[in-house]
Amino acid sequence: MSQSLRTVVTMEELFSARNSLPGTVGLVPTMGYLHEGHISLVRRARAECDHVVTSIFVNPTQFGPAEDLEKYPRDIENDTRLLENAGAELVWTPTVKEMYPDNFQTWVEVEKLTKPLEGAMRPGHFRGVSTIVAKLFNAVRPDKAYFGQKDAQQAAVIRQMTRDLNYPIEIVVCPIIREPDGLAMSSRNTYLDSKQRQAAIVLFRALTQARKSFENGNRDAESLRKIVKSVIEEEALAQVQYVSCADYDTLTELDTINRKALLSLAVYFGKTRLIDNFILG
Amino acid sequence: MSQSLRTVVTMEELFSARNSLPGTVGLVPTMGYLHEGHISLVRRARAECDHVVTSIFVNPTQFGPAEDLEKYPRDIENDTRLLENAGAELVWTPTVKEMYPDNFQTWVEVEKLTKPLEGAMRPGHFRGVSTIVAKLFNAVRPDKAYFGQKDAQQAAVIRQMTRDLNYPIEIVVCPIIREPDGLAMSSRNTYLDSKQRQAAIVLFRALTQARKSFENGNRDAESLRKIVKSVIEEEALAQVQYVSCADYDTLTELDTINRKALLSLAVYFGKTRLIDNFILG
Repeated sequence: MSQSLRTVVTMEELFSARNSLPGTVGLVPTMGYLHEGHISLVRRARAECDHVVTSIFVNPTQFGPAEDLEKYPRDIENDTRLLENAGAELVWTPTVKEMYPDNFQTWVEVEKLTKPLEGAMRPGHFRGVSTIVAKLFNAVRPDKAYFGQKDAQQAAVIRQMTRDLNYPIEIVVCPIIREPDGLAMSSRNTYLDSKQRQAAIVLFRALTQARKSFENGNRDAESLRKIVKSVIEEEALAQVQYVSCADYDTLTELDTINRKALLSLAVYFGKTRLIDNFILG
Repeated sequence: MSQSLRTVVTMEELFSARNSLPGTVGLVPTMGYLHEGHISLVRRARAECDHVVTSIFVNPTQFGPAEDLEKYPRDIENDTRLLENAGAELVWTPTVKEMYPDNFQTWVEVEKLTKPLEGAMRPGHFRGVSTIVAKLFNAVRPDKAYFGQKDAQQAAVIRQMTRDLNYPIEIVVCPIIREPDGLAMSSRNTYLDSKQRQAAIVLFRALTQARKSFENGNRDAESLRKIVKSVIEEEALAQVQYVSCADYDTLTELDTINRKALLSLAVYFGKTRLIDNFILG
């Protein structure tokens, strides 16, 4: 199914290339260093839309000052090969200067949904995310846009933004893609040394154990959070930042799981911060 | 040049009507109670675009708690007649509930440009403006959008937002339309009693006098501000809120007028607040 992939950099090139695509357009926004998770989004877009537009942009405004913007992994050559093989027709690789020119001063902010979880741990992160996604939506004008369930809160924030700002865009959230041993795929996994990589499978094990308890009828959210924590705490290389069992739509913590819920976590392995989640119910 | 005008209310109706318009679309957003200023925008859009879409929505989020949201004048029947005569094909009249449903929580904010002038006097006003205009842009996806120079800072804020958020939309700012005696047309002029209406021509007189001084070589911004103030202060019914002589693009106050400048003011007549401006250079 491979076809020729066109790379555009400037806004002018993007607008002109976009205008030459008739029919429906699916957008897959990425920060590059692509893995099977991203590629699953491109394949889904390929199956559902006439054309697939992707973007690769390591968005500086969603990184905190102490975060890994500088060392975030990049491999544009491999990325374009993967995108082409997966059936993308266009990849937009804007520069930081193009996206945030001098005197840039406009922000898109989603209020309530960005307060807990990742928003609490990474102040300003979602302001950067919602602003860059709005910019991508405006420039590309897609019919559908594809995001991974791995970044569960991001997907919720973007769904909310899309609804609130009247975008005629369908947000498609695709399942987490995992390594054979259960570790959720992430560009940041490359930071792990071999011992940390081995230790990191504890996240999947902990989530699985809590889900088993849920499937056996346990509806007590705090008890599920405790199961996840206690499994992870047995792993010496892991340091829990948060474990959450929250309402799937509002992301407010639950006492009793009486509706669709998100069981999610953030855990450090050395300086590397990993997130993962299961949907319950 | 009159043609049939279609009214849509819900988002679904709007999307469907929008998708049936091939070619270029010009958008004229309004709060209704239309006058010749609005109609000049529709005519300009009519001349420049294949189709003209308008909106009438008294946007609650751009009114402060002590402002005139409740009594803002409305006359939808007359408005639709005027729009049809001017050549608009579609008018979107959404409800407040449609635009701001329960759980609405996403805002578009322009930072620097919204600080002075109207932004200083009306906290939150421009957050409401930029958010509603983004919503209109997203839903209508116009090629061009038309705004009046009367709301000079609003036009600057929207130009900035359009650039910052990558909208492929050309912002067209049209000249102020004035009554024969010089008063800038405004839906709020209807609040004035006959004595206030007569007194309000002092704004045009004051701006004209300052412009004459500028044309005679006066480049001292403070001196022009003083001319405007002193003329207005001779009018007993007028109460100056601010007089500004600022850089046209950044809206920062000038000492010396060595580039395009905006001479602007806000003045109360009783409880009615009027604004007006001249461009210098």
